[in-house]
Amino acid sequence: MQAISETTDKPAARLDFRTAPDAYRHWSISIDGPVATLIMAVDEDSPFADGYELKLNSYDIGVDVELYDAVQRLRFEHPEVRTVVLTSGIDAMFCAGANIRMLGSSSHSHKVNFCKFTNETRNAIEDSSLRSGQTYMTALNGTAAGGGYELALATEYLMLIDDGNSAVSLPEVPLLAVLPGTGGLTRVVDKRKVRRDLADVFCTVEEGMKGQRAVDWRLVDEIVPRSKFDARVREKALQLAATSDRPENESGIRLKRLEREQDKDEIRYPFVTVTLDRAGRSGTIEIMAPDRDAPADVDGIEAEGVSFWPLAVSRAIDDALLHLRFNEPILGTLIIKTSGDGQRVAAYDELLRSNRDNWLVREILLYMQRTFKRLDVTSRTTFAFVEPGSCFVGMLADLLFAVDRSYMLDGQLDDRPAASIRLTELNFGALRMSNGLTRLETRFLGDSASLKNAQDLIGQGLDAAAALDAGLVTYTPDDIDWEDEIRLLLEERASFSPDALTGMEANLRFVGPETLETKIFGRLSAWQNWIFQRPNAAGDSGALKLYGTGKRAKYDRGRV
Amino acid sequence: MQAISETTDKPAARLDFRTAPDAYRHWSISIDGPVATLIMAVDEDSPFADGYELKLNSYDIGVDVELYDAVQRLRFEHPEVRTVVLTSGIDAMFCAGANIRMLGSSSHSHKVNFCKFTNETRNAIEDSSLRSGQTYMTALNGTAAGGGYELALATEYLMLIDDGNSAVSLPEVPLLAVLPGTGGLTRVVDKRKVRRDLADVFCTVEEGMKGQRAVDWRLVDEIVPRSKFDARVREKALQLAATSDRPENESGIRLKRLEREQDKDEIRYPFVTVTLDRAGRSGTIEIMAPDRDAPADVDGIEAEGVSFWPLAVSRAIDDALLHLRFNEPILGTLIIKTSGDGQRVAAYDELLRSNRDNWLVREILLYMQRTFKRLDVTSRTTFAFVEPGSCFVGMLADLLFAVDRSYMLDGQLDDRPAASIRLTELNFGALRMSNGLTRLETRFLGDSASLKNAQDLIGQGLDAAAALDAGLVTYTPDDIDWEDEIRLLLEERASFSPDALTGMEANLRFVGPETLETKIFGRLSAWQNWIFQRPNAAGDSGALKLYGTGKRAKYDRGRV
Repeated sequence: MQAISETTDKPAARLDFRTAPDAYRHWSISIDGPVATLIMAVDEDSPFADGYELKLNSYDIGVDVELYDAVQRLRFEHPEVRTVVLTSGIDAMFCAGANIRMLGSSSHSHKVNFCKFTNETRNAIEDSSLRSGQTYMTALNGTAAGGGYELALATEYLMLIDDGNSAVSLPEVPLLAVLPGTGGLTRVVDKRKVRRDLADVFCTVEEGMKGQRAVDWRLVDEIVPRSKFDARVREKALQLAATSDRPENESGIRLKRLEREQDKDEIRYPFVTVTLDRAGRSGTIEIMAPDRDAPADVDGIEAEGVSFWPLAVSRAIDDALLHLRFNEPILGTLIIKTSGDGQRVAAYDELLRSNRDNWLVREILLYMQRTFKRLDVTSRTTFAFVEPGSCFVGMLADLLFAVDRSYMLDGQLDDRPAASIRLTELNFGALRMSNGLTRLETRFLGDSASLKNAQDLIGQGLDAAAALDAGLVTYTPDDIDWEDEIRLLLEERASFSPDALTGMEANLRFVGPETLETKIFGRLSAWQNWIFQRPNAAGDSGALKLYGTGKRAKYDRGRV
Repeated sequence: MQAISETTDKPAARLDFRTAPDAYRHWSISIDGPVATLIMAVDEDSPFADGYELKLNSYDIGVDVELYDAVQRLRFEHPEVRTVVLTSGIDAMFCAGANIRMLGSSSHSHKVNFCKFTNETRNAIEDSSLRSGQTYMTALNGTAAGGGYELALATEYLMLIDDGNSAVSLPEVPLLAVLPGTGGLTRVVDKRKVRRDLADVFCTVEEGMKGQRAVDWRLVDEIVPRSKFDARVREKALQLAATSDRPENESGIRLKRLEREQDKDEIRYPFVTVTLDRAGRSGTIEIMAPDRDAPADVDGIEAEGVSFWPLAVSRAIDDALLHLRFNEPILGTLIIKTSGDGQRVAAYDELLRSNRDNWLVREILLYMQRTFKRLDVTSRTTFAFVEPGSCFVGMLADLLFAVDRSYMLDGQLDDRPAASIRLTELNFGALRMSNGLTRLETRFLGDSASLKNAQDLIGQGLDAAAALDAGLVTYTPDDIDWEDEIRLLLEERASFSPDALTGMEANLRFVGPETLETKIFGRLSAWQNWIFQRPNAAGDSGALKLYGTGKRAKYDRGRV
C-alpha cells in the first residue's frame, strides 16, 4: 500500500471518487423489472494500491468507491428499481470484509478515513431503504465475514444460503484485535437487536454462525437451501418491491461524469470552487448561486439533469469533501463561502419545497442531506464566512448551522451591498442531521423560543445585526475588523492540535438524541480509532500487522 | 508519579479508596442546617504520588477519592442535608482541574482509569441532585478551569463571583491538546445546552469567560458581586433545600470504615470475597447471601447500619471493582458468583421493595444502582457462573444481566441441589443502567414478548432449562461439561487482545437510548482515550508532556 502520509501535503496515492459502471472492476449491476442485483466479484489483481491482493471478495477503498457510485446511480438513474439485492459473483464467499493486509499496511489516517467513507456508504444504503423506496436486501450466497457481514447488516433483509458451510461472522476481535468498526457492533445490538450476551459470543467466534442458529439469534432473517435460493431471493425482492412508492414510468436522470478541473491550489466544479491555502492549512469551498432562473417544474428539472443547480452543487460539495479528506490531510480548516444572487437560490429552494413529493426532488433533497451530513462528520474545523455578495439563503443557509462557527461581516467592503441571510422552510425539516434533528433544532436544543423566532423570520432578509440577534451566526465583525479577525481566527485554529480539535468537534456537533448513525460515528468509530492506535493492533507485534505472516501477535495484557 | 504499569502485576502505587473526613487532606465539610458546604483546599504537598505539587486546587486521584467519600457520606450520614454547596477554600481559584504534570507523567492506563473514576463521582453528584433530594450547587468564588469547571458542571446551579477576574474555562484543547474529558464537552452542549458554535469558541479560549457573558452563554446561572456573594449563596442554597423531600428528624447511618482483609490472592469483605487468579488473568467476586434474617422494618435497617446486608454488599462490590481496576490491571476477566440462602436474599429484596419510599432504603437502592453501573463501565470482561448453592435472586439476579455472558450449570456437582435463579420486582425498575433502562429492558430491547414473559416469571424458582428458555442466561452446560467449558471459556477470553475486548464490550453493553452518562462514557471517553494515545498529546513532544517545561509542543499537522 502506498501509505497516505499524515504529514506530507503530497500524498503518494490520490483518490478519485468519480467512476461509472463501464469502469467498474469489482461490481456489476443487473436489472430485471423492479429488482436490481448488485453483484460483487472483486478483481483480486486490481487493488487500489500496491502490496496486497483482493482475495475472497475482500475490499479496499477502490472497491467501496464503486459501491458508492452504484448506490447513487440506482437512485437517480433507475426510478423503476424498488429493491436492490446485494450478492456475490464468486463461489462460496459473499464478502470477506476489508482487506486485512491493506489495513495492516495503511497509515492511521487512511484507516480512519477509509472506515468513515465505508460507514457513509452503508448509511446511504440504509437511507435508500428507509426514505427512497429502494430497499436493499442481501442474498448471502456464501460466507459474509467481518466487513462483509457489516455490509449485509446495512440492508433490511438478510437471506443466508443453508449449505452447511456459508456463515455470517464478525471475527475482528479474535482474529485481528480490532473492532467490527463499520457499524457492525452497533447494528448487531441496536438495529437487529441481537441479545447482548449472544452478540458477545458471536463477536468472539471466528467461524461465525450458520443455519438455524443464525436465524434464532437474529443474525439473519431467513435461511434457504441452495436448490430454492435463487427463486426465494427473487420472491422476497418482489415482495419488498411491492411496498415501494417509486414511480413506474419515469426515465430518471443520468449521473454524467462530474466535471472537475484541478491545478495546484484550486479545484473547479460547476458552481463550486475549492481554493487551497496549504501554507495557512485551510481550504475554502465557495458555492455560487445559479446562473439562470429555476426551471418551472419537475419536467424542467429532469431536462436539466445533473446540470440542475441543487444537484450540481451537491455533487460538487460531496466530491470536494471526499477529496479534501483523503488527499489534503493537512488542510485542517474548511471555510464555506457563497456568492451570487440569493433571489435565485430562493427560487430553487421554493421549487424543491413545492415538489418535494416528486421522486426526483426527493432524491435531490436526500442527496443534499447526505452531503451535508458528510460535512458534519468531516474531521476538519468548519467555518462559514458571510460576506457582501454572498447568498446564504435556504438550503445554503443550512451550511451556517452545519459549521463549527459562522462569521458575518457587518458592513461593506466595496460597493456590493452588505451581506444578508435568509431562512426558508427547507431549514425546518428537509435537511436533517444524523441525530434526526434539523440543524436549527440542534442549534437551539435548549431554547425553543429561539427556534420559534427563527421560524417567524422565514423569508426575511436578515442583516448582520438581525442574524446575530436571532442567534443564527456566531460573530459579526465590522468592515474595519473583518480581515484581522479572520486572519487571527485561522492562525489560532491552525495552532491547535489537530487531534484535540477532531475530538472536540465530534463531541460538540451532535447534541440531543442519538441514532444508529451517531452511535456509529461517535461511540464505535472513536473506540476503533483508539484501537487503531494501540500497539496490540497496530504495533509491529500487533495482530493487524502480523496477520498472514504466520506469527502470533504479542499482546500487552494490561486492561485499560 | 509512580506510574501504574499496564503490564506488571505489581503496581508501584496501590490505591485505597477507603477514607473518612478526619483523614481528609484536601476537603472539609461544614454543615449549617439543611446546607452542607464542601470546601476544596487542596494540600499541594500531599499528592498521591511523587513528582508533582497540587497547586491552585488542582487534583489527582487522591483528591477525588476524598470527594467521592464525602459525597457518599453526605447522603447516608446526613439525611438533614438538602443542598450541598461546592466551593473553594483558597484564594481566587475554585479549582484548576486535574493536575497536568500528574497527567503528563501517568501511564495511559492510569489516565483512563482516573478519568473514569472522576466521571463516576461527577455522575454520583448528579444522581444525588436528581434522585436523592440532596441538590448540589457550586459557589464559584474563584476561577474554575478545566476539570474544575467540569466538576461545577455536574452540579445543578453555578454561581460565579463577579470580581472582574474569576472565570470559567475549558482550556484543554488550546493548552494541552486533550479534551475536557470528564464530562465537560457533553455537559456544556447536552446538559447546559450552550449553543454549539458558542461552545466551540468557549472551548478554545484559554482564559475562558466571566461576567455577564458567562451568563448569556449559559455557562453559569448567575453572577454575583463579591459583597453579596456569601449571602446570595446561602439564599440560593436554602431555596434549593426547600424543594427536597429528605426527612427532617432522622439521624442517618454512619459509614464506618469498610472491613477488608487482603492477602496475595484473596480479598475478604463482609459477604464478599474476591479471589485473584493471576496466572489465568481472572478475578472472581463471590457474593454471599445474608447470614441472618432480614430485619422487620426500616428501624431494623437503621439499627444494622453498614452491616445491613444489601448495603454491606454494595460497599464491598464498589470497593472491589475500584481496587481491581486500579491495582490489578492484568485481570482481564471478572467472574461473578453467589452462594447461600436465596430465600434470605428474597426477603431482603422484599424489605427494600416494600420500603422503597423511605429515604434510607432509597439511598441503599441508589447506591446499589451506582455500584452495578460501575460494573457496567468497568473495562473488563464480566461473566456470571450460576452453580449449585448459588443465590441469584432479585437484586443479585440483576448481575446476570449486567455481565457480558452468564453460564448456568444444568445438574449437580455434589449433594447440593441444582442451581435456580429467581426474578423479583427489583429487576423491573429499581436498578437502572446509564441508558435509563433496566437491565432486562436492555437485554430484551427488541423483544417485548420476552420482557413480558420475564415479568410473568417473578417469584418462580427457575432451573437451568427454564432460565435458558426465558433468555435469562447465555448457556447451560451440564455437570459433565461444566468444568471443561468454563476452563476453555476463560482461556479463550484471556487469549484475545485486551483493547479489542474493551472496545467491543463498550459498544455491546449499552443499546437503546443514550443519556448524558452513556454519551460521556461512550463518545467522550472513547475520543479522549484516542487522544491520550496520540503523539500530539502524549508523545515526547506532545503538549501534555511538555506543559510547564517552557517548550512548545510540536504537532503532526495531519487531520485524522
